[in-house]
Amino acid sequence: MRHTTQEKEEYIVPLDEIEIINYAKRFFTRATGGHKVALGIGDDCASLRPAAGHEVLVSTDTLAEAVHFLRDLSAPEDIGAKSVHTAVSDIAAMGGRPLALLLSINLHEADRGWIGAYLRGAGKAAREVGAPIVGGNVSAAAALSFTVTALGEVKKGFRVDRSGARPGDAVYITGHPGESALGLDLLTERKSKYTPSQKRLIHRHILPTPRLEWGRMLAERQIPSAMIDVSDGVTLDFRRMIQASGAGGRIWLDKIPISEDARKVIGKNSRESVLQKMVTGGEDYELLFTVRPAREARLERLIKTGKIEATRIGDITGEKGKLEIFGKEGKKVDFKVEGWLHS
Amino acid sequence: MRHTTQEKEEYIVPLDEIEIINYAKRFFTRATGGHKVALGIGDDCASLRPAAGHEVLVSTDTLAEAVHFLRDLSAPEDIGAKSVHTAVSDIAAMGGRPLALLLSINLHEADRGWIGAYLRGAGKAAREVGAPIVGGNVSAAAALSFTVTALGEVKKGFRVDRSGARPGDAVYITGHPGESALGLDLLTERKSKYTPSQKRLIHRHILPTPRLEWGRMLAERQIPSAMIDVSDGVTLDFRRMIQASGAGGRIWLDKIPISEDARKVIGKNSRESVLQKMVTGGEDYELLFTVRPAREARLERLIKTGKIEATRIGDITGEKGKLEIFGKEGKKVDFKVEGWLHS
Repeated sequence: MRHTTQEKEEYIVPLDEIEIINYAKRFFTRATGGHKVALGIGDDCASLRPAAGHEVLVSTDTLAEAVHFLRDLSAPEDIGAKSVHTAVSDIAAMGGRPLALLLSINLHEADRGWIGAYLRGAGKAAREVGAPIVGGNVSAAAALSFTVTALGEVKKGFRVDRSGARPGDAVYITGHPGESALGLDLLTERKSKYTPSQKRLIHRHILPTPRLEWGRMLAERQIPSAMIDVSDGVTLDFRRMIQASGAGGRIWLDKIPISEDARKVIGKNSRESVLQKMVTGGEDYELLFTVRPAREARLERLIKTGKIEATRIGDITGEKGKLEIFGKEGKKVDFKVEGWLHS
Repeated sequence: MRHTTQEKEEYIVPLDEIEIINYAKRFFTRATGGHKVALGIGDDCASLRPAAGHEVLVSTDTLAEAVHFLRDLSAPEDIGAKSVHTAVSDIAAMGGRPLALLLSINLHEADRGWIGAYLRGAGKAAREVGAPIVGGNVSAAAALSFTVTALGEVKKGFRVDRSGARPGDAVYITGHPGESALGLDLLTERKSKYTPSQKRLIHRHILPTPRLEWGRMLAERQIPSAMIDVSDGVTLDFRRMIQASGAGGRIWLDKIPISEDARKVIGKNSRESVLQKMVTGGEDYELLFTVRPAREARLERLIKTGKIEATRIGDITGEKGKLEIFGKEGKKVDFKVEGWLHS
């Protein structure tokens, strides 16, 4: 409910809640119908039936205009997909399976075409991760933003928290962290042409992949002692993990895996400064996890057989809260900024 | 993750995510500890253990500055409480019990004191409704808003949807709808002094009560055939109910219950125009529900023994989608606006 006609005037958008809900239903109902959704869009609440013997995971994430996206740099379909991907990434980090999503839209200066494209992107991503959009909210606001709440399920006893790391554990990262940061740099150069390698890195920023299958596989085999998804940079999220675990940790920059595409883009730039950027840049959504020594062989077999891409980049120490980063020839590196906040 | 230092400059607030999370933990951990919360604030997800044989209800609601609240008209504690109350009202409308809440804050030009007071209000309300705040998100944004996601549980077979109304059902409303609209009018007059009656109506706007106990009691006794909470006005939410039910409906304005305080405030104003305002004004969060003839006696007993305040205001007809409002001497009333949108 708004205050008065006068006060709300400037926030009027050429779309109303019912129109968007009807629009959303068209896109989203195809995604519904799983036997776990007892009631989808259109009532006061959605209702879910998680599997017996499972816990219900829940997490929420916001993409705000000018902070997390710029309309002239990202297509609305991609912003829609990214808002789904970043939310389900938290489910992946617990070893869970997504059940359903809620989408809250703060509307501001967005026309039918743009919102329609956003909803198409969000709906397609929801289908791809197997989590129907079962509800949400549409509100006028003084700024455009999207909040996605992801619900998931995980078998009791198989949930992986960020607090389980212990001294002596090995530290692993999936995929290639830092590519999103390199991609963002390329994107903000606003070039008219990009090489294929550059394009792939830009795509990694625009639409990061939530590591749902890897997260679940690791959790089901009880390999990780702790796990977190890297949203704000490897170093900052690693610090969060060691703090939650009451432990310390070390990372070796020269262990950070670098893809061929990244190598081409980095070129002759000082490798260490680029690596620092790569481990402090956010929005990778790779999984950072720790493994007890007795479970490492099991993980290494999965890596060798190509079932997961993961690289050992450090280890857990007993020095509570102490984070050490080692660069060239084992020299310690001091970071001014460990990562991205407000993300 | 933000785009560049330059672009984000104007959105900087004197609070960062970690500070707010730490602050929130202080307020909110006292609310946690229910055996149904397996994991609270501080990890990638929260994790819940709903009771066996129950479905999981979920709903989300946003309060945006300048649209749903004005900082000079509402205290931050009240905005905090209201953002919790409006979210759990949707759980009440399904006959459910709140389990937990997620709070997402879009930060914009809010200082420590204001946000601290907001969090205190939200935390207190969360404790009062028995639903701990188990997680959320903090993001910089170009406008201040709060999105609360409420999770609840309801025993299988006892959920009350809005779609179950059938011709011949009686239509009931709890409490006194329209008091929030009268209160908002009084509030926007910005008087320096208000009478006690005026103050109570203003309070009904500033902090509406979610009807959790009534909703659950009705559902447990299987009294309602359909139920919805009135967020956007009795007429608009009644229309939503009859549309979802594939039925029609009638309301008699002179059946709308009017409290002594409201009577004093209305004074000599034309009763019918005030009543129209009262049934189209939003944010009552009363429960609008329908009852099969065979169950009405059961409900009337609850009303007589003071277990619930509810009044019969209309009935359900077979004319699909047709909503009729009757005023003085049974004359039909045509409304220009049925209720509030974008809320």
